[in-house]
Amino acid sequence: MQNFTFYNPTRILFGTGRIANIAREIPANARVLITYGGGSIVKTGTLAEVKAALNGFTVFEFAGIEPNPTYETLMKAVELARRENIDFLLAVGGGSVIDGTKFIAAAIPFVGEPWDLLAKRAKVSSAIPFGSVLTLPATGSEMNSGAVITKRATNDKLAFSNGLLFPRFSVLDPTKTYTLPARQVANGVVDAFVHITEQYLTFPADAKVQDRFAEGLLLTLIEDGPKALLEPENYDVRANLMWTATLALNGLIGAGVPNDWATHMLGHELTALHGLDHAQTLAVVLPAMLQIRREEKRGKLLQFAERVWGLRDGDEDARIDQAIERTRQFFESLQVPTRLSGYGIGKDAIPALMAQLERHGMVALGEHQSFSLEGSRQVYELAA
Amino acid sequence: MQNFTFYNPTRILFGTGRIANIAREIPANARVLITYGGGSIVKTGTLAEVKAALNGFTVFEFAGIEPNPTYETLMKAVELARRENIDFLLAVGGGSVIDGTKFIAAAIPFVGEPWDLLAKRAKVSSAIPFGSVLTLPATGSEMNSGAVITKRATNDKLAFSNGLLFPRFSVLDPTKTYTLPARQVANGVVDAFVHITEQYLTFPADAKVQDRFAEGLLLTLIEDGPKALLEPENYDVRANLMWTATLALNGLIGAGVPNDWATHMLGHELTALHGLDHAQTLAVVLPAMLQIRREEKRGKLLQFAERVWGLRDGDEDARIDQAIERTRQFFESLQVPTRLSGYGIGKDAIPALMAQLERHGMVALGEHQSFSLEGSRQVYELAA
Repeated sequence: MQNFTFYNPTRILFGTGRIANIAREIPANARVLITYGGGSIVKTGTLAEVKAALNGFTVFEFAGIEPNPTYETLMKAVELARRENIDFLLAVGGGSVIDGTKFIAAAIPFVGEPWDLLAKRAKVSSAIPFGSVLTLPATGSEMNSGAVITKRATNDKLAFSNGLLFPRFSVLDPTKTYTLPARQVANGVVDAFVHITEQYLTFPADAKVQDRFAEGLLLTLIEDGPKALLEPENYDVRANLMWTATLALNGLIGAGVPNDWATHMLGHELTALHGLDHAQTLAVVLPAMLQIRREEKRGKLLQFAERVWGLRDGDEDARIDQAIERTRQFFESLQVPTRLSGYGIGKDAIPALMAQLERHGMVALGEHQSFSLEGSRQVYELAA
Repeated sequence: MQNFTFYNPTRILFGTGRIANIAREIPANARVLITYGGGSIVKTGTLAEVKAALNGFTVFEFAGIEPNPTYETLMKAVELARRENIDFLLAVGGGSVIDGTKFIAAAIPFVGEPWDLLAKRAKVSSAIPFGSVLTLPATGSEMNSGAVITKRATNDKLAFSNGLLFPRFSVLDPTKTYTLPARQVANGVVDAFVHITEQYLTFPADAKVQDRFAEGLLLTLIEDGPKALLEPENYDVRANLMWTATLALNGLIGAGVPNDWATHMLGHELTALHGLDHAQTLAVVLPAMLQIRREEKRGKLLQFAERVWGLRDGDEDARIDQAIERTRQFFESLQVPTRLSGYGIGKDAIPALMAQLERHGMVALGEHQSFSLEGSRQVYELAA
């Protein structure tokens, strides 16, 4: 096991009716800015439920945070928050809203140009406290301190994180996911799946607990992901998926083991240039990535084949091929295509993707910090 | 899945050499009281290493916290801390030292008789902050907010917990466990094992993640527990056991599922009256407890039999019998006897144990809050 530091102070309020408990998690007399996305929380009544729970606080709203939240939109919230002396933020939505709210939280007190937090890795020395009410299980942002923000003007999709950016609390009410469109549910399952593989399918580090936790989360996604599409109001299925997606990226399974994240880096460029959903990009990149890097990942791919897919027979290479194929079929079964062609993107798109990767310095990726641009090109080509 | 709140703000510093990092976790200019037990940390050099890492702080020491820490001893530390205006505590040791330090932390600012924190469940409204350096993986106290304290004068062994009693940080350096006596290593494995079963062997709650995490921890104990005795300086084995014991009782696997804890309650009386090690009491009580309550625990016992012990054949009752027997054999293989007779205790001891249980109000235990004194008597008798 590698040395690690684990710290996660987010308070999780899990279950039905927990929105009613948020007031006691927010400092008295706080001026609260509710941040959200496209308005589905208005239609479903969740926004009204949140506002009822905030009775007694001075409450403002900022709507319109988009999927792959943009700097351009978020800076409008920063201006509003500065003008109104907001001292608590409450994100209501999925990972994009929560990620965006982390940027707002860090940008409000930031002196200078807040985009430097991403482009120049400027230090976050303070942040406005915030909580979240999660409506879409997928990214894990509700229990971690990272965020991915896009600058529309330049097609840059970049990540940042800081210990000051953990939500103070997150409400995880599975019933709030009943009304999600099937595409978002499926995307969430794929997103969580690939978060896990980025921390698990690397090289063996004799970290038995982290491995078994990762495998347990993957098995739960495989069992309950399809059920969530078939039975949208099955509470236990939704609850298991919601808790799985949170634990997939709250630091626990990645502590003490190598981490990869190359699939994410290649995926980000697909979203930046072609507008694919984040999970769609992961479904495209992962199977090809595992094929191209099967030798360096051999030990863990065999463990994945056996413990996650139950593949114990046949020679090693056949088991690895089957494990990758079963993974691809799982994504496809959720109606998430796993080829660039499935999204109408041809091989002619690859040079521009490569130029983006190079511009963003993605030249030595992966658990060995050695996965090169040439490797990335092979992955994009195999994924065509 | 049941509704739950999960909150755990302890920062874990895991790995070799991490003691050197503690100074930045303690407020500048703090007056630090190091608390410890019988002096093994003096012999091993760990105390010197800790004091070197605290260079620049004003440091005091309190030695002599015993296994099953007593109110009588701990109050001497409280007096010292009050007299010297201590504002940070650093526990160096195993679960008893950390539990005891939690009591000291709560007792220092307590107005009135601190034993009321346990006997009368008086409210903890403030506590001195503290950290820990763990030398014995077993109880999970290094990452939770609970403690068990014994009052020698009255043979009371009682528990308390409060959100203010999480360690600010805990150092988990597996090399610090190399020199532990075999009995303490074995006890730690049994203790962690039973912590897990108390949260897992109840009734099904369709909490797939919690179940799989629990099973992953149990499998790790079964694989690496015996190895720790055979290869005391195998780093990865010690690391896996240390992280397993912490995660066994940090709130994660017990969140959203029924909890039992009856085995612990019956065990506490064995320690209070007969001085058995805590883990020894659990090894005695658990197999008998599972036999007596096999019907109410049937579903989870079958899952335990299959996923933990690989028992898939034969009729259900045979599988349950085998799972309980394998558990007993596992404890015995670690040289921890699983019968009262193994500790020279006869059936004649049972009436006094029953009187203690009744005096402590242990009349409706378990995941259904319905396990009666009569049931407890049957367990003690079957364990004879």
